Amino acid sequence: MSPLNFACHALAAACTFAALASMADGVGIVEKRVFELPVYSTVGGTSIKHVRVGYETYGRLNEAGDNAIFIPHYFSGTSHAAGRYAESDPLPGYWDEIIGPGRAIDTDKYFVVSADALANVNFKDPNVVTTGPASIDPDTGRPYGLNFPVISYRDTVRVHKALVDSLGVRRLVGTVGASGGSIQAMEWGALYPDFVPRIVQVIGPGFEIHPYVLAMVDVWSAPIRLDPAWNGGDYYGRAEPVEGVAQALTIITLMAQHWDWAAQNFGYEPESADRPPAERLSNRFRIEAALAAAGAARAALVDANHLLYMSKANQLYRLSEDEIAGIKAKILFIPASSDVVFPPALSERAQEQFSARGGRAEFFMIEGGGGHLDGLYQIGQAARAIFEFLASD
Amino acid sequence: MSPLNFACHALAAACTFAALASMADGVGIVEKRVFELPVYSTVGGTSIKHVRVGYETYGRLNEAGDNAIFIPHYFSGTSHAAGRYAESDPLPGYWDEIIGPGRAIDTDKYFVVSADALANVNFKDPNVVTTGPASIDPDTGRPYGLNFPVISYRDTVRVHKALVDSLGVRRLVGTVGASGGSIQAMEWGALYPDFVPRIVQVIGPGFEIHPYVLAMVDVWSAPIRLDPAWNGGDYYGRAEPVEGVAQALTIITLMAQHWDWAAQNFGYEPESADRPPAERLSNRFRIEAALAAAGAARAALVDANHLLYMSKANQLYRLSEDEIAGIKAKILFIPASSDVVFPPALSERAQEQFSARGGRAEFFMIEGGGGHLDGLYQIGQAARAIFEFLASD
Repeated sequence: MSPLNFACHALAAACTFAALASMADGVGIVEKRVFELPVYSTVGGTSIKHVRVGYETYGRLNEAGDNAIFIPHYFSGTSHAAGRYAESDPLPGYWDEIIGPGRAIDTDKYFVVSADALANVNFKDPNVVTTGPASIDPDTGRPYGLNFPVISYRDTVRVHKALVDSLGVRRLVGTVGASGGSIQAMEWGALYPDFVPRIVQVIGPGFEIHPYVLAMVDVWSAPIRLDPAWNGGDYYGRAEPVEGVAQALTIITLMAQHWDWAAQNFGYEPESADRPPAERLSNRFRIEAALAAAGAARAALVDANHLLYMSKANQLYRLSEDEIAGIKAKILFIPASSDVVFPPALSERAQEQFSARGGRAEFFMIEGGGGHLDGLYQIGQAARAIFEFLASD
Repeated sequence: MSPLNFACHALAAACTFAALASMADGVGIVEKRVFELPVYSTVGGTSIKHVRVGYETYGRLNEAGDNAIFIPHYFSGTSHAAGRYAESDPLPGYWDEIIGPGRAIDTDKYFVVSADALANVNFKDPNVVTTGPASIDPDTGRPYGLNFPVISYRDTVRVHKALVDSLGVRRLVGTVGASGGSIQAMEWGALYPDFVPRIVQVIGPGFEIHPYVLAMVDVWSAPIRLDPAWNGGDYYGRAEPVEGVAQALTIITLMAQHWDWAAQNFGYEPESADRPPAERLSNRFRIEAALAAAGAARAALVDANHLLYMSKANQLYRLSEDEIAGIKAKILFIPASSDVVFPPALSERAQEQFSARGGRAEFFMIEGGGGHLDGLYQIGQAARAIFEFLASD
């Protein structure tokens, strides 16, 4: 069953809308561009020279410069939110279901911008352009490694704001992000309250990383630090900590899923029928082998230090009371019911918190057993809610 | 606020009962004994010579031999469910709150037996007696290592049944276990339906490990296999995989907790005020440092291979339809509301499943934000439910 069909079954009200969207052609072929800043000074006060981030756009900016929507990407994601880079691409961008002509984020109406974060984990992905510890330090001609300054999501948002300004945008319609992207979506509203009238936080943490999640992020990244090849972050030009990165991505992959994914795809099947898990310690279930393979496959595109820097950025997210009070946007919280990374309770708490101080906050739950990733693959359930929210005053 | 007081606040109905229990003296000083079998043949068909497991008892067996309750222990636990080994012990056994004279599991009335599992992870704890990969193989004079056969919880239950028989028990009142202990409690009912009329499964998985949890257990144990010192399980007499074991225990420690533990004990405090986490990648939050320290401290008592064998035992738990149909006991499911290891949905599903086939199943939810460990530290909430269940027909 496709995600679209599942959404129709789960939420009949969204079905007609989603079905109509699926018949449209989408944004088609998209192009990755590069935005450059000669120098960027971080929130922490360190200057980084020659900052580059990749971006892509869908739809057209109107003359008033006020029809733009910014889509920050999730932890392990990229700017590729919709469309294909080439006809031969097997899959479109991750939110293609809701971005395009006639879709929830309607590119006939809106100018959509998405950009790669600083220290994007997929440093080795040829379609990703980012600046982080694996980038060459112009002063030394060698990768920064751990000499790269700590960056927060707020740093990424400030660079992306410069990008959006450079494109001629005068005011956004809103920001829409999933997970780590939802953190940036909120940071946009806190940093630029007059520029951001709407925020959609999909599978997000609310206004801060809960201390429990902060600790969970530490668990994700620990295998890298335990890998002797990591060598305190100094591994460029030699053997990289591939095993540590693969295990980190295995944990992240598992935490982003839940019941349905495991039961429907794997159940209790052994990796091999002639090696039953009950017979030897090393005989695995198929789900164990598949997770290890997924981690290893994803590791090929990932830089270890970038993953650690992005983990730190997640841990550092916490708006102050004053910053929350300064947000002028209305906010739509869209958690996923079986999410174990940012469970719905966090969105409920944030909605209550924002409403209690007089802010306007709405709530829409994505139902399903797919966990955190339901915020990507079941986003069709929320298509109408997002569409109406973006069009509302 | 003590766990007891918290329970009173959370559930006024249980308060009087719990308060009464807290005033009793408990089981006092208890003694660890050793049960031995010259040979045990595993479910998988391999013979293990000279099997030894530790056990302790509270209360007295009656003449009819029919007033005994068996308490299997959880994954990282031991037989020490109640009392103290010496007056100077800082803490009593983990369920002391519900085991003792006048308590929910009333030792004036019942004869309570608890025993160490095969391959108990705390091999180096002087109070633990177990047989597993770190034990000496009588045939070689060296530790078994990975030559030790894979064991399931069912193997442990069969050895414990032999122990209980040796003590003169003719029929149990019931089995009561938490987490991994709740799996054994259920296996008792499946293996010995005429011997086990009542099963209390606290923070348990129902009748099987869900494939998602199976994969999570793999994530827990992965750091051991990644540690070069593990050396395929052959590390006895040389440097042990201490870092891998510590990280495995860090993950297990975190997964067993939830919101309240993190927010109330740590919040966003840095490990050190002069090393803010936003300034350097290596500067940690206090919760990260505390988890790492907890993992390292627990590692001192743990054998790496034992942890892997216990992980495998968890992964292998799955009763067949026939085995579930064969259970004659009534079952009390007691999940904890914020448990992320065995979430309440698993107990709900199992209760429905058992009721649907005509079995008698009851349900009591422990409320709180402490996660899986609420099944240990908030057990007072369930004291009355357990008391009444054990006394019921």
